[in-house]
Amino acid sequence: MTGTPAPFTADDYEARMRRAAEAAADAGLAGVLVAPGPDLVWLTGYRPVETERLTLLVLRAGEDPVLVVPTLEAPDAAKATGAPALTLRDWTDGKDPYEATASLLAPEGRFGVSDNAWALHLLGLQKRLPDSRHVALTEALPMLRAVKDAAELERLAAAGAAADATFEEIRRVPFVGRREADVAADIADLLRRFGHSQVDFTIVASGPNGANPHHEAEDRIIQRGDMVVLDFGGLKDGYGSDTSRTVHVGEPDDEERKVYDIVRAAQEAGFRAVRPGVACQDVDRAAREVITEAGYGEYFIHRTGHGIGVTTHEPPYMIEGEQQPLVPGMCFSVEPGIYLPGRFGVRIEDIVTVTEDGGRRLNTTSRELVIVD
Amino acid sequence: MTGTPAPFTADDYEARMRRAAEAAADAGLAGVLVAPGPDLVWLTGYRPVETERLTLLVLRAGEDPVLVVPTLEAPDAAKATGAPALTLRDWTDGKDPYEATASLLAPEGRFGVSDNAWALHLLGLQKRLPDSRHVALTEALPMLRAVKDAAELERLAAAGAAADATFEEIRRVPFVGRREADVAADIADLLRRFGHSQVDFTIVASGPNGANPHHEAEDRIIQRGDMVVLDFGGLKDGYGSDTSRTVHVGEPDDEERKVYDIVRAAQEAGFRAVRPGVACQDVDRAAREVITEAGYGEYFIHRTGHGIGVTTHEPPYMIEGEQQPLVPGMCFSVEPGIYLPGRFGVRIEDIVTVTEDGGRRLNTTSRELVIVD
Repeated sequence: MTGTPAPFTADDYEARMRRAAEAAADAGLAGVLVAPGPDLVWLTGYRPVETERLTLLVLRAGEDPVLVVPTLEAPDAAKATGAPALTLRDWTDGKDPYEATASLLAPEGRFGVSDNAWALHLLGLQKRLPDSRHVALTEALPMLRAVKDAAELERLAAAGAAADATFEEIRRVPFVGRREADVAADIADLLRRFGHSQVDFTIVASGPNGANPHHEAEDRIIQRGDMVVLDFGGLKDGYGSDTSRTVHVGEPDDEERKVYDIVRAAQEAGFRAVRPGVACQDVDRAAREVITEAGYGEYFIHRTGHGIGVTTHEPPYMIEGEQQPLVPGMCFSVEPGIYLPGRFGVRIEDIVTVTEDGGRRLNTTSRELVIVD
Repeated sequence: MTGTPAPFTADDYEARMRRAAEAAADAGLAGVLVAPGPDLVWLTGYRPVETERLTLLVLRAGEDPVLVVPTLEAPDAAKATGAPALTLRDWTDGKDPYEATASLLAPEGRFGVSDNAWALHLLGLQKRLPDSRHVALTEALPMLRAVKDAAELERLAAAGAAADATFEEIRRVPFVGRREADVAADIADLLRRFGHSQVDFTIVASGPNGANPHHEAEDRIIQRGDMVVLDFGGLKDGYGSDTSRTVHVGEPDDEERKVYDIVRAAQEAGFRAVRPGVACQDVDRAAREVITEAGYGEYFIHRTGHGIGVTTHEPPYMIEGEQQPLVPGMCFSVEPGIYLPGRFGVRIEDIVTVTEDGGRRLNTTSRELVIVD
């Protein structure tokens, strides 16, 4: 696989923070409040554990970024790559961190808050500043992390290549007579071998379990004649992979092949809809139309895709009602499926990035139906 | 070590949910809103991934518990041990989950919300029910999970014994010349070998790094003459361990021994303060007084302890200002420390449970200064 990419620098993080503060001002926000999690990692490179102790990055246009941090954590925060651009404001156990934060904030301001900030902390701020208003960051600035730059695309492509390499190995392992969980463990080992530092999910859904899109691998023994949905991903060098292939153990029957071909055509239609300026919902519609026309519309029970970056699930979402236009550099999954309760399921998923004149797949293993043993 | 304890049953979870709903009503709340995380695990045994899709348990006194869940996740939710007592209300991608939840809630009610619920979800509910109010669950019902029953105590004691067994092994490994991260990896392996399914932290803080209470193990090579703070824990059979011992590589000098003895005396004083009816803050005061009297008060820069259960950090907190009286069955850490910037740190931590007439340590390895090589 590819080598380790050059790490992001203090300048990279400073530019991201400045861009976020400016985007917030443009959107009429008084600032952005960022809790530990993917937004904070993306903005600063700092990756603290989420706890009941408040850690919060405050971004305001025209002001230096401030990181409110427990005194205990301040030494680690100061080592983050993005720290040179941050003013650390630490608070000690027993003091009120919300009071300390409130003094930074316009009392009647409207603030974007990272989606995964804890209710505990949001309520603490709302109590201190009852006239302030808050809006989730993916609602206020849904595109903040959505358009990837060249260095990010390189990482996402490498993560996708590692997921593809995993599929090329896993299709050759024995399926018949083994537990779903055993194949899932093989997948996790392969993802790590191909450079993943974190494995987020390893779905192995055989036979009737395939009809549950989020089935967790379990004790079911895989049998000859099973359709098996494989959906796996995680983080490599800080960026996500997520791919699904559906394989068949031995020869499929006519209906299995028919359903497979419909999903493959839907995935292709979704992919072909990708180009700059097209609304996210049109990618969903393009894929869904194929399945609906074939008479299986009621069995496609989820959206067509989700963004991917420093997480494996983020905006933009390819879903009816999402009118956000596609922009070159966006990366997201195109993953239609058909789920027949009690029988089997099929899902095919590639990560796709928007280019100047269309889309480019970051997963490139065959989408033909693969027969396994 | 001990075998696997009998799993909690549907009846156990139903009783917990009923108790929570009643406690909420007693506290003047219209209900409790529980997001994925430790509260949900404790109440239902259901352990979904936290995502942007709303999953929320709604508890109201006199009503059956309702679990709002994405359609995608409903099959897994239905398999949770606590599911027989739940009414599942699923919602499909593209529908508004907050609308679906709001119809369950009194429009002007005051609700307890689990601390780690995402801001995204809280803001979604606040928008639909602007006259409702919300309060963090640890503020509204801080003692909901704090008093452990016999089955929980058994698990916490077993987790503590596994942590103790880990210390007894790790004190015998080589320290000199190895990286902190290598010793940390040994600790993680040992915790798993002694039955932990999850390792939450493995602090190895040598020499000057010991002055940072939350130092992460890193590349520093441990040297003869170092004090080394070891602080580790995780989950075994769903319940937490968390213990700290400070060891010395070779013979300590007089000041190192003096500081160690002060911390040990402070830990003993904190432990001896534990008995029913005593306020949490008095445990903190008892430990802190020893350190302050010895002239090191400004170097004890954190609270004395935190609760432990299905998480390794939860109420009750042993901190100045916390007047909650201790109740038999509570479990928490007693972990005073002294941190001398640029030089070294010492921390000693046991998990302690409140008994009818005092406290009982769930960690029982020696608190004498251990010399390692």
